[in-house]
Amino acid sequence: MAKTIDPWGSKLIGNYEKIMKEFGLEKFKIEMFPNPNRIMRRNVVFAGRDLKIIAASIKNKKPFYALSGIMPTGDKIHLGNKLTVENLRYFQEHGAITYILVADLEALTTRGVRLKEAKKRALNFHIPAYIALGLDPRKTVFYFQSENKDVIYGAYEFASKITLNEFRAVYGDADPSRILAAVTQVADILYPQLKKPMPGIVPVGIDQDPHIRLTRDVTRRLKSKYGFVLPSSLEHKYTPSLDGKLKMSKSNPGSYIELPEDPEKTERKIMNAVTGGRVSIEEQKKKGGQPEKCMVFELLKQHLVEDDDELADIYKRCRSGNLLCGECKKMTACKMKDFLNDFNDKLKKAKKDINKISFVKF
Amino acid sequence: MAKTIDPWGSKLIGNYEKIMKEFGLEKFKIEMFPNPNRIMRRNVVFAGRDLKIIAASIKNKKPFYALSGIMPTGDKIHLGNKLTVENLRYFQEHGAITYILVADLEALTTRGVRLKEAKKRALNFHIPAYIALGLDPRKTVFYFQSENKDVIYGAYEFASKITLNEFRAVYGDADPSRILAAVTQVADILYPQLKKPMPGIVPVGIDQDPHIRLTRDVTRRLKSKYGFVLPSSLEHKYTPSLDGKLKMSKSNPGSYIELPEDPEKTERKIMNAVTGGRVSIEEQKKKGGQPEKCMVFELLKQHLVEDDDELADIYKRCRSGNLLCGECKKMTACKMKDFLNDFNDKLKKAKKDINKISFVKF
Repeated sequence: MAKTIDPWGSKLIGNYEKIMKEFGLEKFKIEMFPNPNRIMRRNVVFAGRDLKIIAASIKNKKPFYALSGIMPTGDKIHLGNKLTVENLRYFQEHGAITYILVADLEALTTRGVRLKEAKKRALNFHIPAYIALGLDPRKTVFYFQSENKDVIYGAYEFASKITLNEFRAVYGDADPSRILAAVTQVADILYPQLKKPMPGIVPVGIDQDPHIRLTRDVTRRLKSKYGFVLPSSLEHKYTPSLDGKLKMSKSNPGSYIELPEDPEKTERKIMNAVTGGRVSIEEQKKKGGQPEKCMVFELLKQHLVEDDDELADIYKRCRSGNLLCGECKKMTACKMKDFLNDFNDKLKKAKKDINKISFVKF
Repeated sequence: MAKTIDPWGSKLIGNYEKIMKEFGLEKFKIEMFPNPNRIMRRNVVFAGRDLKIIAASIKNKKPFYALSGIMPTGDKIHLGNKLTVENLRYFQEHGAITYILVADLEALTTRGVRLKEAKKRALNFHIPAYIALGLDPRKTVFYFQSENKDVIYGAYEFASKITLNEFRAVYGDADPSRILAAVTQVADILYPQLKKPMPGIVPVGIDQDPHIRLTRDVTRRLKSKYGFVLPSSLEHKYTPSLDGKLKMSKSNPGSYIELPEDPEKTERKIMNAVTGGRVSIEEQKKKGGQPEKCMVFELLKQHLVEDDDELADIYKRCRSGNLLCGECKKMTACKMKDFLNDFNDKLKKAKKDINKISFVKF
């Protein structure tokens, strides 16, 4: 089971180098892509699959697609979704036809969420949230799985190319609901290629990698019949939990930041975060802080400081002992507040405009 | 694996008494149903599940449904399908709302039959054949799985109520395609109850019993939420192969009668059938024939002689040694020809009228 990550669970993953080797991921090389975004520049995006073909599509202005799914459960998203949207937006700005699907059939089968409820949630929150995070709805194809017959038929058709043992090898477990969800996801990822095969990229958090592997395995078998291009992937790390664990988890709400969230609450969480500070102010002034081990710095690096020079300056001031944790936390909380307020404003606007979006219909 | 019958395969089943015990089937009691049809009267229909509730629905003129599926592969059906249609027709004539679904998603996932091809086959042959065998299209709701969203959504929804181990226990095996086919079939069987729970009966050949068991297991778990009534079933025996094996199989075409089939070919097959005749004409005249062991008599009993007195007379004349096998085979071949010609005429007419049928749409 060494190769198994449970994409539905919340197991911690320790060693990204090791994971890359085990999953057969290639290293993300920043020089391949023009104008890399913040998380690409900062090694938050760290790996992928068949990235060359996407880089070539961008360079040669050839058609390709970028795709991601929304799981319409709850009324919050997490910072990992934000990273995904930022990568989607990057490819969108570099020519990708972008697809956003609402995984309502998956939510129905794996979580018992009724389709009507899923639709309400997606329209009232998830899709507006993705737009608030930077997705351009005018350049995006939206659909609900339940309303896309090609996806549904694809799920039935492609299921015959997968064995139960493969499910087990990829997911560690296989129950009927998960199998339905997974074959539907395979069909989602291949859907943009049904009319015309083309390269495509799926930006994911590393915990979603099993879906990519399964889809690529199936696609290899479908290639001769359909001419599909193997879908590429771009993989980002977790945003670590404020208590120092590798992944934010709802089970520890004090160390978990959701979107949207009350800015005041978030401030308290940041003030309590684990940092790379020393045991005493004196020692920190003498030895300097350790931003590499600091959850607050990670938040700045991954999410809150766009400008590289500004981030480098914070890093330097921390290392030199000039920027102490209290001050830094206050600054971070302030930036987070700004981000949350900006997100809320944009979310409000996107909610108002939701009727302008059209969806693929059965 | 003693309880496993593979409904997709063609394993022979020896002992109906034993099967009834193992599968928990109840004995079919003819006195429960008014005006029993030919195969009910002759113990071809031999078992079922929750038959009382259907008998009560008929008696009290309460709503209930009868349902069967068409697998749109090939351009022939077999005599087992004929038995199913005869039972459907029985319930239809006794007040059932009848459903015929075309299992095109099942054919797609388990056999790779494209939906368009499945549609063509169903419209050009399978549905007309069912009508030729006696189904009243004006009293029947027809649909294709791929065009019935409630069935598709039901498949996703109900899948969460089944474990992989149950699949294994029921089917002996479980691969993703079969799982998709089976959960879709569960949704088919429950579909007539989605708007309003009511009793329903699924007439099947005994090899289809696993689907019934799985559906009833799932339904038990869905009962509290949806109020579903457990679907009843009515089970018929195989039409034995002309070479004496328990079940007609395509692998032995000389002993297999399909619909439609060239009447001349069928005559040759019947002339070569295994009978209950003695080693010599002299001995047969002395000891009489053994209709219980005779494939030709079975064909007369199951399919070709409607009138009980006429069948009893054939039986008596065989047992007494007055009716010898050659003469009996000729008579049977003649009856079969009449049946096939009649079927062909009705098929032609039903094909012409196919455009009058309307289907449930997405």
